[in-house]
Amino acid sequence: MARPKPLSGFPEFLPAGRIVEQAVLDSLRSTFELHGFASIETRAVEPMEALTRKGEITKEVYVVRRLHAAEGEASDDLGLHFDLTVPFARYVLENSGHLHFPFRRYQIQKVWRGERPQEGRYREFVQADIDIVGEGVLAEHHDVEVVLVMLEALERLHTELGLPPVTIHVNNRKLAEGFYRGLGVEDHLAVLQRVDKLDKIGPDAVHALLVEELGLTADAAARCLALATITAADDSFVDAVRALGVTHDLLDEGLAALASVVRAAAAVAPGRVVADLKIARGLDYYTGTVYETELAGYEKLGSICSGGRYDSLASDGRTTYPGVGISVGVTRILGVLIGQGKLTASRSVPTCVLVAVDDEDSRSASMGIAARLRARGIPTEVAPRADRFGKQIRYADRRGIPYVWFGDSVKDIRSGEQLPADPDRWTPPPADLRPTVGAG
Amino acid sequence: MARPKPLSGFPEFLPAGRIVEQAVLDSLRSTFELHGFASIETRAVEPMEALTRKGEITKEVYVVRRLHAAEGEASDDLGLHFDLTVPFARYVLENSGHLHFPFRRYQIQKVWRGERPQEGRYREFVQADIDIVGEGVLAEHHDVEVVLVMLEALERLHTELGLPPVTIHVNNRKLAEGFYRGLGVEDHLAVLQRVDKLDKIGPDAVHALLVEELGLTADAAARCLALATITAADDSFVDAVRALGVTHDLLDEGLAALASVVRAAAAVAPGRVVADLKIARGLDYYTGTVYETELAGYEKLGSICSGGRYDSLASDGRTTYPGVGISVGVTRILGVLIGQGKLTASRSVPTCVLVAVDDEDSRSASMGIAARLRARGIPTEVAPRADRFGKQIRYADRRGIPYVWFGDSVKDIRSGEQLPADPDRWTPPPADLRPTVGAG
Repeated sequence: MARPKPLSGFPEFLPAGRIVEQAVLDSLRSTFELHGFASIETRAVEPMEALTRKGEITKEVYVVRRLHAAEGEASDDLGLHFDLTVPFARYVLENSGHLHFPFRRYQIQKVWRGERPQEGRYREFVQADIDIVGEGVLAEHHDVEVVLVMLEALERLHTELGLPPVTIHVNNRKLAEGFYRGLGVEDHLAVLQRVDKLDKIGPDAVHALLVEELGLTADAAARCLALATITAADDSFVDAVRALGVTHDLLDEGLAALASVVRAAAAVAPGRVVADLKIARGLDYYTGTVYETELAGYEKLGSICSGGRYDSLASDGRTTYPGVGISVGVTRILGVLIGQGKLTASRSVPTCVLVAVDDEDSRSASMGIAARLRARGIPTEVAPRADRFGKQIRYADRRGIPYVWFGDSVKDIRSGEQLPADPDRWTPPPADLRPTVGAG
Repeated sequence: MARPKPLSGFPEFLPAGRIVEQAVLDSLRSTFELHGFASIETRAVEPMEALTRKGEITKEVYVVRRLHAAEGEASDDLGLHFDLTVPFARYVLENSGHLHFPFRRYQIQKVWRGERPQEGRYREFVQADIDIVGEGVLAEHHDVEVVLVMLEALERLHTELGLPPVTIHVNNRKLAEGFYRGLGVEDHLAVLQRVDKLDKIGPDAVHALLVEELGLTADAAARCLALATITAADDSFVDAVRALGVTHDLLDEGLAALASVVRAAAAVAPGRVVADLKIARGLDYYTGTVYETELAGYEKLGSICSGGRYDSLASDGRTTYPGVGISVGVTRILGVLIGQGKLTASRSVPTCVLVAVDDEDSRSASMGIAARLRARGIPTEVAPRADRFGKQIRYADRRGIPYVWFGDSVKDIRSGEQLPADPDRWTPPPADLRPTVGAG
């Protein structure tokens, strides 16, 4: 077998990169669990029918079938999930009798999309989602909660692991809908769809679309555009919207909801969450709050963490399950940061101590020392060969293992310092116990 | 959407079951890392060509293709991996220039097989593998090491999480091959293949096959059968084999290698590792030590943890990479134990404390208390509604959350005891901090 080549769009990390990824996933999990979110994992496949309901994403699905499916076996009706929301909605319906609502879950899994691979866009990637789903109703304060939990999670990645800081942009679909309705526009989604092109085609082109395609007056189109330019890290956006002179009950509702998210976030992490009235999240299933997130210095990646409120995450005909959730694209961030060497691990193995071996006859003595170190939680390997000590030290050095144990002493191979030590008592400095992760 | 039904062969756990699974995976990871194994994850897909090399498994592969593959796109040449060994071998070849050998890795991932689903046999399941791979050579003491590491991992699952104990059965392919050659049989694999049917068809039928199909003398066939019945938890099996009066250099080599595994294991965990001379692991790529594992009380599941030595895990034509590894079928074990209620979690959420809410106006005060508890690592939720306190307590009780916080006191809802408490100081007993897992 010749040396295989990587498969475009299916990133894999070397061991040191994987240590970075593990640290990020552990940190996310820890934050989510601190907030009482329960983990679930769903199977990788869903019925194609469930995956293709959202028309626009159909083309990106991977179909799965058994190579030798039995005659008559419906084998072509499964696909790999392309997000964690569709599987979660199905899981909620399937298990509703066994879940307690509101149900808070996090889910960290790979998803697959047949997109054209490019930087930050992969065919296989890890997402980490939190959602809160209610039975029939779900209080609005959960819209505030999920963004604060995710912000805390992303802030920890920033302060503890050296990822760049984020800005979360929040909007509320009711706000825009109420505003458009207050202007007398009935087809609010048509307006939203055109305003959503603002970053791509510019304000003049959007204005032209609104007037020519939708028949808005020049003034109404101008006000729609003015609305989309409003951003604020505090609730001052409310006055800015009011100043546009549009009134509607739904607009009031959206303004109040968005203001409460922004105020709560400003109290916890000033400047990290901004009201940004152009955020729409396409024509997705969102019905209230929507979130997008920029990673400082990596804005070209697009939103690395998105989500929102959906009044009907799932429904079995009798009961409707409203939800609010937010999802971080772990691989989108790490593929770039690890690839560029911006995030690194202090070593490529978990090992803290390498126990040297004098000769093969004394290997079991070295194994005994290693066992005593491990019994106290110190990751330890025994040297694979009774080479001369310089070579055993090089084995450790290449992997970044900080300590080599010789008989009754331990050597810090970075400083060269060697001190007598007892395997039942010696403890490395906490920073050396496990690999650490930081900005490279 | 009507209530969806589970997909046969694709098990999913409810949140409490998932907590059990997480505890098991965390424990395995911790043991593997204590022994210096580095984590890797490989993509879910491999080229079909790589997956179908082992003829017998071809029919079980899931093929993957993009729903709307572009014209001319080679879209049908990917499949989901059915184990973690084939992907690992490919990863080693692909990244050999960036890895340090011997390379020790663990890998905990889902794999997919299109098998007929039955108890303990799934179409999607989690495996946890450890392997050590060398460049050109790999010392035999690693055969001892991997079985001891896995034994330690399985023993921790037994003592700390309440899984049943295991017995690991070990053999060495050289031993059987040398024995058959010593009897004058050239086609040792043909003998192995028939002896491997011992449990299924019994000794008389195997004897008949050896004589009739392979032309062995009745005496030689009897000695092959006698060899297969030898088991011992210590190195007494060596004398038992010698007593059969067969000699061959390869037999000596196999006996010595197996004896060293069994002696080392007996010193660490007496009785848990037995030499079992009928173990063959089919006609797989193993060339030396082979392992199989029985879970006490669940022998009908078959081997829950298997592996062995392969002299050529991978080769790029110039360099050969020998390896030794062992793989535990996590879902095979947990699907049954969780399904039967033999392993349970103390609660279905990570939450330790629910902070009650007096009325919606004081929600932010409750959020403040929760933040102070979380700042000290205590998983905390705020009650979703300012219901009467009895209802808020029921919210906690249903999920198994042990404590409810009211203003300046905390109530253990199991005992009913309520005590004054400061959110900056109060600490739950360690056993209550996180969900615990044990035999149900």
